[in-house]
Amino acid sequence: MKSIPPTLIHSTLAQQLEPEGAFIYLNLALEAKKKGIEVVSFGIGQPDFKPPEEVLNAIKEAIDKGFIKYISPLGIPELRAKVAEYLNQKYGTDIKPEEVAITIGAKSAVFMSIALLTRPGDEVIVPDPGFPTYECVVRYAGGRPVFLVLREEDQFRMTPERVEQCLTKNVRGIIINTPHNPTGSMLTKEDVKGVMEIARKKNLFIISDEIYEDYVYEGEHYSFLKEPDWRDHVIYISGFSKTWALTGLRIGILVARKEIIERIDLFATNVYSCPPAPFQYGALKALEIGLDWFKKIREDYRRRRDTAWEELNKIPGVKALKMPGAFYLFPNVKELVKKMGYKNVDELARAMLFEAGVVLLPGTAFPMYGGEGYMRVSYVLPVEKIREGLGKVREWVEKKIRG
Amino acid sequence: MKSIPPTLIHSTLAQQLEPEGAFIYLNLALEAKKKGIEVVSFGIGQPDFKPPEEVLNAIKEAIDKGFIKYISPLGIPELRAKVAEYLNQKYGTDIKPEEVAITIGAKSAVFMSIALLTRPGDEVIVPDPGFPTYECVVRYAGGRPVFLVLREEDQFRMTPERVEQCLTKNVRGIIINTPHNPTGSMLTKEDVKGVMEIARKKNLFIISDEIYEDYVYEGEHYSFLKEPDWRDHVIYISGFSKTWALTGLRIGILVARKEIIERIDLFATNVYSCPPAPFQYGALKALEIGLDWFKKIREDYRRRRDTAWEELNKIPGVKALKMPGAFYLFPNVKELVKKMGYKNVDELARAMLFEAGVVLLPGTAFPMYGGEGYMRVSYVLPVEKIREGLGKVREWVEKKIRG
Repeated sequence: MKSIPPTLIHSTLAQQLEPEGAFIYLNLALEAKKKGIEVVSFGIGQPDFKPPEEVLNAIKEAIDKGFIKYISPLGIPELRAKVAEYLNQKYGTDIKPEEVAITIGAKSAVFMSIALLTRPGDEVIVPDPGFPTYECVVRYAGGRPVFLVLREEDQFRMTPERVEQCLTKNVRGIIINTPHNPTGSMLTKEDVKGVMEIARKKNLFIISDEIYEDYVYEGEHYSFLKEPDWRDHVIYISGFSKTWALTGLRIGILVARKEIIERIDLFATNVYSCPPAPFQYGALKALEIGLDWFKKIREDYRRRRDTAWEELNKIPGVKALKMPGAFYLFPNVKELVKKMGYKNVDELARAMLFEAGVVLLPGTAFPMYGGEGYMRVSYVLPVEKIREGLGKVREWVEKKIRG
Repeated sequence: MKSIPPTLIHSTLAQQLEPEGAFIYLNLALEAKKKGIEVVSFGIGQPDFKPPEEVLNAIKEAIDKGFIKYISPLGIPELRAKVAEYLNQKYGTDIKPEEVAITIGAKSAVFMSIALLTRPGDEVIVPDPGFPTYECVVRYAGGRPVFLVLREEDQFRMTPERVEQCLTKNVRGIIINTPHNPTGSMLTKEDVKGVMEIARKKNLFIISDEIYEDYVYEGEHYSFLKEPDWRDHVIYISGFSKTWALTGLRIGILVARKEIIERIDLFATNVYSCPPAPFQYGALKALEIGLDWFKKIREDYRRRRDTAWEELNKIPGVKALKMPGAFYLFPNVKELVKKMGYKNVDELARAMLFEAGVVLLPGTAFPMYGGEGYMRVSYVLPVEKIREGLGKVREWVEKKIRG
């Protein structure tokens, strides 16, 4: 194959944008399936239930009514007002409609806010393990990620103590994800208050990705928006992908002080013009319905978590904490890697896929040092399927160790 | 109002992203309406007809079938294959499915391709007047736009001669928009061949935004994809917004050699994850239907163009060329500005809105020097409305000049 001509060499900044490890494994899983392997996948971060029918109907009605034209880059005013009202009720805050932007999924909110606030040379603290986009976009914007390695002994929380240890004179901001992908950890109220206190003292921004805010099985999610001076530090990010199982529609939420929203307006104008018009009405309907129906989903997910946790701990060499949030567990497999003679967790993950037919993502897909020796288990499967899949892993491990 | 705290000061790169002048005038029009002024707007670049019912039905069916989950960042394989087939038939090319990306409207394709190819310090030729996003994103990527001023005596075409005049040792690429917003101009086959020849000689990339490719009233649109070595130079951009009147759904197309598409994959992953899933099936249906139904639309738009052209030339001090493409005319109003004693075309546009109740956009909204003394007339209105609106302008002008 002819390599790329000099005319089309790309910017080194753009080269900072890297693939998500998850996608690599989803492709490997397809490969395995083609080879006739029956695969149980704990690989994808996508809920498996259906959104409320009324939400989808509202979208279809909007299409029928001709809401397929350009809208404001920040979304329709009714939805922005409704999001403010909804979050104010949920978190006891005083967000105004002009402090809300509707985005192309939480992803574009993450992209735009990091790219907006990171200046060339700035250092930004990112969780490691963590969602790969955080560090990619920091580097894309010309900044340097400072990896805060989350520790098992802290239940993988980004504690104020750990943040303090990462401060350098160039650190300008912190990216937080609570509940957390890939570990399922959650900042406590005290964590949030402690991190905010550091932000106040050191003049830092906080980009708080709270997309998993409703997947909480122990304690309560404490949003950064609850801090009264959030406007001076915080960009809050969430969306409709996880709670409402609308991943493929890409409807995100960004909350920040008005001057930031005005900049997001310009960013959105130049990056994608506006979020899709008809989905606005689906999102509006979702917030009208509220979260009562979700309680059943959460209880179901709690059972899945408990099952996955039990089954994981039955596997020799695996030690899983019972994590309080999101839909992930992040078992320690260091002993297993050693027992089975693999070089690292990536080798283990590949062997597990092709030999046992089960996808667990290697912790190193998220994306640096912190994930070595761990795997992400996304329990978005029915309880029976979770038992079956992790049972297969156990059998495979037991056979390999004995043999 | 409290100004922005130091924690939230944004990157100077992000500050390069500016508003579209069109939006400023759309907001002014709302203001005028609130004051009770009846407004006829030639301001927005959005077709006024409905897309084929089958396209919308296909989207609704996709929602019913549960196509609301994550898809590939580049769109579904069936649509990428169909786009390749469709364009190959249309332009006699040999595009492969892996050379196609489905994006969030042509806008995100423009954003990503400019941001991908422009390295800090690179100079990129952009049309002036031209779509504001081009120069904003060049600057956002750390590059410098070189403004090629389109001249009335060239029928506002970006001719090879003019491109040649803009070359410096730092020029790395050219952004082209044919048919052209805001002037309605169109590159001839000879223009395209001449510009490609320069690209070959000087090792330049060409980003060719051909979103108006089907709105052609004279001659034939000659796509840059028709040049056999397009893979070495060209990123082609189009989408479903204009031809299919689906502006608010944001479905774009990007065609480039495979290595570029692989980078767009990573860009899309980090900027928005994937284009919305259900729209893929609407776009697929659109291409299955083909363009026969559009002939009627085009004939209607030709009549509108002819009407707008006639009516504009009846206004004292206005001189409009009959432009061959898109849905814009770009009349010269230099004499009118002088006659009426305004400082510039922006003053004229504001007075016209608040005194005559008609929105024509000042050429300077696009966005630099080239548009001074010109206005953009978007003829996306029924013939009668066009007569009424431009008639009102004429009466207003005649009255003011006499008075």
